[in-house]
Amino acid sequence: MAQKVLVLGATGETGREIVNALLAAGTFDVTALVRPSSATKPAVLALEPTGVHLLIASLDLPVETLAAQIKPYHTIISCIGPMHQLAQLPLIAATALAGTQRFVPCGFTTICPPGGVMYMRDEKERVYQALWVAKVPYTIIDVGFWHQISFLTLPSGRSKYAAIFEFKEVYAGGEAKTLLIDKSDVGRFVARIVADERTVNKKVVAWGEERTQREIKAIMEEVSGETLDNLVEVSESQVRANAVECLAAFEAEDNMQTRFGLYNGQYNLSKFVRGDNTLTNALYLGYLDAHVLYPDISPVAFRDYAREIIEGKAVAVYADGFPS
Amino acid sequence: MAQKVLVLGATGETGREIVNALLAAGTFDVTALVRPSSATKPAVLALEPTGVHLLIASLDLPVETLAAQIKPYHTIISCIGPMHQLAQLPLIAATALAGTQRFVPCGFTTICPPGGVMYMRDEKERVYQALWVAKVPYTIIDVGFWHQISFLTLPSGRSKYAAIFEFKEVYAGGEAKTLLIDKSDVGRFVARIVADERTVNKKVVAWGEERTQREIKAIMEEVSGETLDNLVEVSESQVRANAVECLAAFEAEDNMQTRFGLYNGQYNLSKFVRGDNTLTNALYLGYLDAHVLYPDISPVAFRDYAREIIEGKAVAVYADGFPS
Ligand SMILES: NC(=O)c1ccc[n+]([C@@H]2O[C@H](COP(=O)([O-])OP(=O)(O)OC[C@H]3O[C@@H](n4cnc5c(N)ncnc54)[C@H](OP(=O)(O)O)[C@@H]3O)[C@@H](O)[C@H]2O)c1
Ligand SMILES: NC(=O)c1ccc[n+]([C@@H]2O[C@H](COP(=O)([O-])OP(=O)(O)OC[C@H]3O[C@@H](n4cnc5c(N)ncnc54)[C@H](OP(=O)(O)O)[C@@H]3O)[C@@H](O)[C@H]2O)c1
Repeated sequence: MAQKVLVLGATGETGREIVNALLAAGTFDVTALVRPSSATKPAVLALEPTGVHLLIASLDLPVETLAAQIKPYHTIISCIGPMHQLAQLPLIAATALAGTQRFVPCGFTTICPPGGVMYMRDEKERVYQALWVAKVPYTIIDVGFWHQISFLTLPSGRSKYAAIFEFKEVYAGGEAKTLLIDKSDVGRFVARIVADERTVNKKVVAWGEERTQREIKAIMEEVSGETLDNLVEVSESQVRANAVECLAAFEAEDNMQTRFGLYNGQYNLSKFVRGDNTLTNALYLGYLDAHVLYPDISPVAFRDYAREIIEGKAVAVYADGFPS
Repeated sequence: MAQKVLVLGATGETGREIVNALLAAGTFDVTALVRPSSATKPAVLALEPTGVHLLIASLDLPVETLAAQIKPYHTIISCIGPMHQLAQLPLIAATALAGTQRFVPCGFTTICPPGGVMYMRDEKERVYQALWVAKVPYTIIDVGFWHQISFLTLPSGRSKYAAIFEFKEVYAGGEAKTLLIDKSDVGRFVARIVADERTVNKKVVAWGEERTQREIKAIMEEVSGETLDNLVEVSESQVRANAVECLAAFEAEDNMQTRFGLYNGQYNLSKFVRGDNTLTNALYLGYLDAHVLYPDISPVAFRDYAREIIEGKAVAVYADGFPS
């Protein structure tokens, strides 16, 4: 019998990759958990024809009501937007009541310890702690930084269509190794992980390759034939100062803009100065390595993604506007 | 060459068991890290004749100075008193600088998740997060509740000498299984764990047996021949209400008394109502089981400890007064 999976955030960047991979696997019965205010969004309406069922429910329902609604699902995967991590808390209470067999909280971020490095990571930790307090079976899945937001902008303008921003900054010397992944591979790994008993009550890191920004530059140059003389060096002390400024702005006012600035500034600090987003650090922090678990998956190499850009085949993320 | 181990809190209840076991193993070179204000305490002076070296140093030294002092030690074990968990934070910064190969933070408590269940546990979690942020190799060791404070008082008064308090309360029906350990076994397990590469960057649960308070009562009756008609039933709702009251008193004023009340009230909630302190929960939370790692260790059974009480051989813990 197909495993019944409920996905929160099915229309998001991460969620749609997971839904696609679950459908492609053919062994899951997939339902999207959609908040009432989003029920008539085109992206939601587009789900049903692909074979995805809809469960329209607010996370703010009384916990018993929500528990009754989610009871039929074996596995719940949350890929809620980065700004809304704590909205998962009532769902966890319901999950505990419903006896859900596996809850995958919204990790899907780079490797970074909890404890003041990244505000977003610490919000995720609050969600994980709620799972542990409620004794809910879980799998935390973190991933490399997406190829789709790790490339460097080509001077010719040929990469412009592939992102809503330009990526010209090389941080702290560009020598820090950092885990990358093609966004589509997030789905491929997740579909395997949630069907695997070895990953129950574990953390798993899913990734494609580990690269420095210097290597990314070299690959972009090799694949495009261009010279990336458009890049801007941002020193370690500038990265540190920026993270401090972003935190001050966020503490003065918590809104989407200050949050976005904070997340971005702290990602740069964590990835490029602290060197947190590495396989070595993931293993230190207790993650299982998805490459070891699933040696048959060959993830999309960054070089292949760079070729997609050149060939006009890349798809910009957040094309409809940034997460809010 | 003997492994050089530095122990913070060597004169405490937990610390002295660990020091004794390290000395007994014969493969460690043991040094006690003692704060200057305690340098002339009798318990400290008594350490040297047993073969323990002394390092008198304040944790509030400049971090580089402290790092230079602790650099010679391969392993650092902290068994600092329950009220002073955060005093470990500067030591962790120094450990990171010194390149210490293993830091054992002050766990040594029952199994309980972080996230608002026990204030003391959450202070420990702040220390663990500081380790992870600093990427210091670590082993977290938690243990059963000591036999020495888990027994039930005999009506005859024959157990009076074995504890500075009376233990007459049976909580929430007395049916919750909870991990126990003889305090001396904490040392025996720790001496093995810190010599074992399998436990680097892991959590380990060391325990003797899993028992309910009803079983403890039955064992006390069997071993003593007495009927424990002196016990007081404390209902689940009373345990819950007490924990709430203790938290309010602590929030109104943080002092040794309110902290002690809070720790006690939350231990009861966690162990006897939530059922956190079990092997199942430890495995769920990712602990390695010391029974599996060291099948040759046969821990002191609670029944044997109960016999020690009857035979007048038990040693009261905190006989010189409670931790402050
Ligand atoms: N590794 C990387 O490079 C990388 C990059 C970006 C993000 N991430 C991580 O990926 C995770 C998901 O982010 P994303 O960017 O994929 O998300 P996203 O594209 O912003 O999509 C968010 C999804 O969550 C839903 N949602 C948002 N708020 C909700 C709420 N309060 N209640 C119910 N549903 C809600 C949205 O549906 P509606 O239509 O109802 O709004 C949407 O389906 C985040 O945790 C983030 O940290 C990782
Ligand atoms: N599993 C159980 O049943 C159980 C029971 C009790 C405790 N525990 C746990 O065991 C751990 C240790 O507690 P304990 O009761 O064994 O400790 P303890 O007997 O109170 O001893 C504390 C030790 O730490 C030292 N110390 C205290 N504050 C210090 C500071 N600020 N700087 C440097 N040294 C300091 C003390 O030395 P000084 O002479 O310098 O004060 C002493 O050596 C705690 O984490 C607690 O949670 C577990």
